[in-house]
Amino acid sequence: MSGIAIHGGAGTLDRSAMTPELEQQYLNALSAAVSIGDQIIQKNGSALDAVEAAVKYLEDFPLFNAGKGAVFTHDKTHELDASIMCGNTLKAGAIAGVSGIANPVSLAKAVMEKSDHVLLCGIGAMKFAEFQGFEVLPESYFHTDLRYNQLLQVIHEDGIFLDHSVHTDPPDKKFGTVGAVALDKHGNLAAATSTGGMTNKRWGRAGDSPIIGAGTYANNNTCAISCTGHGEFFIRAVVAYDISCLMEYAGLTLEEACQKVVNDKLVKFGGEGGLIAIDTKGNICLPFNSTGMYRGWKSESSEIFTAIY
Amino acid sequence: MSGIAIHGGAGTLDRSAMTPELEQQYLNALSAAVSIGDQIIQKNGSALDAVEAAVKYLEDFPLFNAGKGAVFTHDKTHELDASIMCGNTLKAGAIAGVSGIANPVSLAKAVMEKSDHVLLCGIGAMKFAEFQGFEVLPESYFHTDLRYNQLLQVIHEDGIFLDHSVHTDPPDKKFGTVGAVALDKHGNLAAATSTGGMTNKRWGRAGDSPIIGAGTYANNNTCAISCTGHGEFFIRAVVAYDISCLMEYAGLTLEEACQKVVNDKLVKFGGEGGLIAIDTKGNICLPFNSTGMYRGWKSESSEIFTAIY
Repeated sequence: MSGIAIHGGAGTLDRSAMTPELEQQYLNALSAAVSIGDQIIQKNGSALDAVEAAVKYLEDFPLFNAGKGAVFTHDKTHELDASIMCGNTLKAGAIAGVSGIANPVSLAKAVMEKSDHVLLCGIGAMKFAEFQGFEVLPESYFHTDLRYNQLLQVIHEDGIFLDHSVHTDPPDKKFGTVGAVALDKHGNLAAATSTGGMTNKRWGRAGDSPIIGAGTYANNNTCAISCTGHGEFFIRAVVAYDISCLMEYAGLTLEEACQKVVNDKLVKFGGEGGLIAIDTKGNICLPFNSTGMYRGWKSESSEIFTAIY
Repeated sequence: MSGIAIHGGAGTLDRSAMTPELEQQYLNALSAAVSIGDQIIQKNGSALDAVEAAVKYLEDFPLFNAGKGAVFTHDKTHELDASIMCGNTLKAGAIAGVSGIANPVSLAKAVMEKSDHVLLCGIGAMKFAEFQGFEVLPESYFHTDLRYNQLLQVIHEDGIFLDHSVHTDPPDKKFGTVGAVALDKHGNLAAATSTGGMTNKRWGRAGDSPIIGAGTYANNNTCAISCTGHGEFFIRAVVAYDISCLMEYAGLTLEEACQKVVNDKLVKFGGEGGLIAIDTKGNICLPFNSTGMYRGWKSESSEIFTAIY
């Protein structure tokens, strides 16, 4: 068995802002990302290469909050986070707070494959990218009017930062992230996640996307997971590894573990979002507790499915 | 029941470099850190305040690799990582790659208590520190001849960085980190960890210390954990949360879970190091698979114990 699933973010999606044409653009992009990953798997490629390729496509597609199309920070820049993990070797790579890199997922893969490290942050991670031959792009590459206007809508609610507490929830509550999980024909699992984070974010904030165990996890004994949601809650709940542990230690199926974590534990905890998951038998789950999650999936011999709500 | 345990790092400790006088300095510092945390607990204070106070003492003590006495990066700077977690609320705070802050554990606590975030990185985290009124100290505050000489010993082995792969294990294999776990009289658990990372580190590398679930975890249902070791392996193995899950989902005792993770799973995985752990009944475990771990502990009515090997 083999299979692949992808997501393009979850949250309180505003259906009134969605036109039939826009919806079709989203669905086409989701379908294309699944197809790119699936082709690698069908040619006996690795799950690791499949999730990287699918996530790269979503990073390049400007409607998703990752790579080109990433949201703006409070300082009108882009700070990108990504991670990737191989279920066979349990090797992993991640980067946090990187600017100027078109495909953060590929930089995370370079950290995994070409350094002894797992997580590189900020300016240091960018120096590593240059050292590894990644092209450093100007901020203009990442600019989209959509994201800039979203920043302008919230940046002046800034008075709240002068409070003792710093509240930075974006008002639209859409947790833009992209991710992919796959099982290849060699029986290996992999997962990858990439994001621009939250609109108007400050202070070098990182969510769960670059955190192995929280936003991304893969283990050939259990499953591969990529999360999207309110990252702080996903870190505190160690969401991705929790699903793996519920399978390995409590004997739950992938479906049972996903339901317990996303629709029970995270709901009680206040953690809005969802995730995509695939297990060693090719079972795919795409649970979310928000109004929607951009998603696509394909089993070995099935057609490609896509959905938003 | 209540209790506290602390550590000052694990690794392949070189006994030939240890004099009786130096050993006594270490043991006295470990004892003092336990005492500071214990006094808070005995006065009905919170586990959270106790672990912060104990870690602050260790950060201020120049022989440990955290705060003053932190190791040097390749660029002859200091980049500090820390995290803290409350087992009652599952709230957590962490900072990665911060310079100029004397007590990174207190900055992590400010992230937890005074922002909606969990993890802040690099320059952004330093801006948050200034915003919260933390004093920003010059690099000279963190300078110790011991650490500077350690850097000079390895910095010229730099040719290895020109390889395709980047190998940065420090030759002495001492994973300097400090941490504390505590159970207070209200039944609440807490954990905190702080480090300067690895001597000669580059690329904005972060280990497991600022990663909730990897280097630090606390949950009133199970236990509180602070790790020290080869951080990349601890991230990939999600060590701290793994112990919690083995207790919660597989029914292991704290002792059984610690033995399984540190002396079985991590050894097979190649992850050298150790951790300190306390459960809801006040049981304390301090397992390590390296030659030594600087450690100290005290149960509610016991005296203070300290050990290195």
